[in-house]
Amino acid sequence: MRIDALQYCNWSPEIFRQMRQGQVDAVHVTIAYHENFREMVARIEEWNRWFERYPELIFQGFGAGCIDKARETQRTAIFFGFQNPSPIEDDIGLVEIVHRLGVRFMQLSYNNQSLLATGCYEAEDPGITRMGREVIREMNRVGLVIDMSHSAERSTLEAIELSQRPIAITHANPSFWEPALRNKSDKVLAALGESGGMLGFSLYPHHLKDKGQCTVQSFCDMVARTADLMGIDQIGLGSDLCQSQPDSVVEWMRVGRWTKQIDYGEGSKSAPGFPAQPSWFEDNRHFGNIEAGLRAAGFSDQDTAKVMGGNWYRFFDRSFSPEG
Amino acid sequence: MRIDALQYCNWSPEIFRQMRQGQVDAVHVTIAYHENFREMVARIEEWNRWFERYPELIFQGFGAGCIDKARETQRTAIFFGFQNPSPIEDDIGLVEIVHRLGVRFMQLSYNNQSLLATGCYEAEDPGITRMGREVIREMNRVGLVIDMSHSAERSTLEAIELSQRPIAITHANPSFWEPALRNKSDKVLAALGESGGMLGFSLYPHHLKDKGQCTVQSFCDMVARTADLMGIDQIGLGSDLCQSQPDSVVEWMRVGRWTKQIDYGEGSKSAPGFPAQPSWFEDNRHFGNIEAGLRAAGFSDQDTAKVMGGNWYRFFDRSFSPEG
Repeated sequence: MRIDALQYCNWSPEIFRQMRQGQVDAVHVTIAYHENFREMVARIEEWNRWFERYPELIFQGFGAGCIDKARETQRTAIFFGFQNPSPIEDDIGLVEIVHRLGVRFMQLSYNNQSLLATGCYEAEDPGITRMGREVIREMNRVGLVIDMSHSAERSTLEAIELSQRPIAITHANPSFWEPALRNKSDKVLAALGESGGMLGFSLYPHHLKDKGQCTVQSFCDMVARTADLMGIDQIGLGSDLCQSQPDSVVEWMRVGRWTKQIDYGEGSKSAPGFPAQPSWFEDNRHFGNIEAGLRAAGFSDQDTAKVMGGNWYRFFDRSFSPEG
Repeated sequence: MRIDALQYCNWSPEIFRQMRQGQVDAVHVTIAYHENFREMVARIEEWNRWFERYPELIFQGFGAGCIDKARETQRTAIFFGFQNPSPIEDDIGLVEIVHRLGVRFMQLSYNNQSLLATGCYEAEDPGITRMGREVIREMNRVGLVIDMSHSAERSTLEAIELSQRPIAITHANPSFWEPALRNKSDKVLAALGESGGMLGFSLYPHHLKDKGQCTVQSFCDMVARTADLMGIDQIGLGSDLCQSQPDSVVEWMRVGRWTKQIDYGEGSKSAPGFPAQPSWFEDNRHFGNIEAGLRAAGFSDQDTAKVMGGNWYRFFDRSFSPEG
């Protein structure tokens, strides 16, 4: 079983075919960065067109049972998520609405301060806001997973503490391996693991040691060290694959409508666009390289299967239904 | 089994308790008259609060199986519908979105011309529009029922013809009994019955012979005549109960934002508000009076059960799932 807990590609039938070629059973896809509610609905409409046009390749996933269906029918189940809470606006009632529409992950912040929590690029992190506490409780109630991939440290630790259900960091790596602002401290990872939460390892070059030059050995050794820190049941993949996206998209991700200046985020003035992927993970057909790398790094068959998808399967299974 | 195919009450726990006291297993409730998409979502949010606060009385219905669950657990399943296509705006992609949110009926027009069809108060009825034809096909595909209760004659006949799945007139009566502008001609009713569609008999005084003075005998004799015209399997109840609504609501229904003048609709300057209900149907506890009236009018046990809910149950069962 192979599950990728984050992608944001420039979707096309070619990419959907590559998912199947790579035996990827489920993918959590980002459908909103800065969109408001109505704009996000337009993104779902676009996905609905893909589902209608390519039913032999993809369909919308709502629960873990959809992953079983994907495997049985040799397709890929697509699960929706937001990298920012902008689609729920200032309206807690929209949490249940977006869950009904099939949204299964929501980041409480994306780089900047949100109405709910602080992003990892802010100078100060005052922690989870008043509305944030209310929304965490509501997300727990309906079965919408809290994702702190782009959030700042204190907010992340508080989200882990406040949430009654395990949370996720769908796409990031440990700081001990690569000290990127987006990567996570041992303290966060240990708290995440203890709470039953999940980390998805990112393949986005800015999160990798030596960026696009990172070796699969280095990546898989890092996975092994993180398993020691968090537990072998708390880790999976969240590739952050942004395949075939034009650079205008990374600009939208970084800049949205919150500034009139250019913000280079993890890039720079000399390298403002998407960075080149490592040669061993360029698209969905390359998951086998990671699986082979994990075995070479000493993972047993059973533990390799957990990292490739088994752990996310169990997490999806217990996280997406309403409480009780 | 008792199913009411239209109500728009000023919802309260008292009314939900009356539904149960009246053994009403399912109600199709109106959640939009003139609302745009975002405003309609706010109405669903309000319903979600009712569902969260009164789970022992009501829950949202999505399919006929929910009616079985309502009976087993002694509650009422609430099905959503629109009396106007305003919530889908000019965006056919919203048809699938609102179906995902649980909307199961949509009128193609409400009294006035819409983007899709003509309403019964217009002087001219040019029939189903270009967008209307597209939306009918999309509604058929996803399982959203076309409701022509407030539409004009030609548009209604064309909708019956164009739709690949049976349509509904959820709340109206035959013109042969009471020649109100909102009631339906023999031609419409015969075409509706032949196509496998459903008529829900209205208890709204403006649709009744002698309005609030209408007798249950007259009403049930009308049901018997309509059964002869349409077939005993094509009829049910759609009370149009607007219990406890202030007169400001009927003004919103009639006027929306389309005029700056007062429009009295079925009312008049001297009687602008909601009319008084007949004494034998004032709230959900009175469905037994209709059931007794049908028996008195000569309906067999089996046929009475069909009219009280059995026919709508079968219609719900075959209408709300995607095609194929």
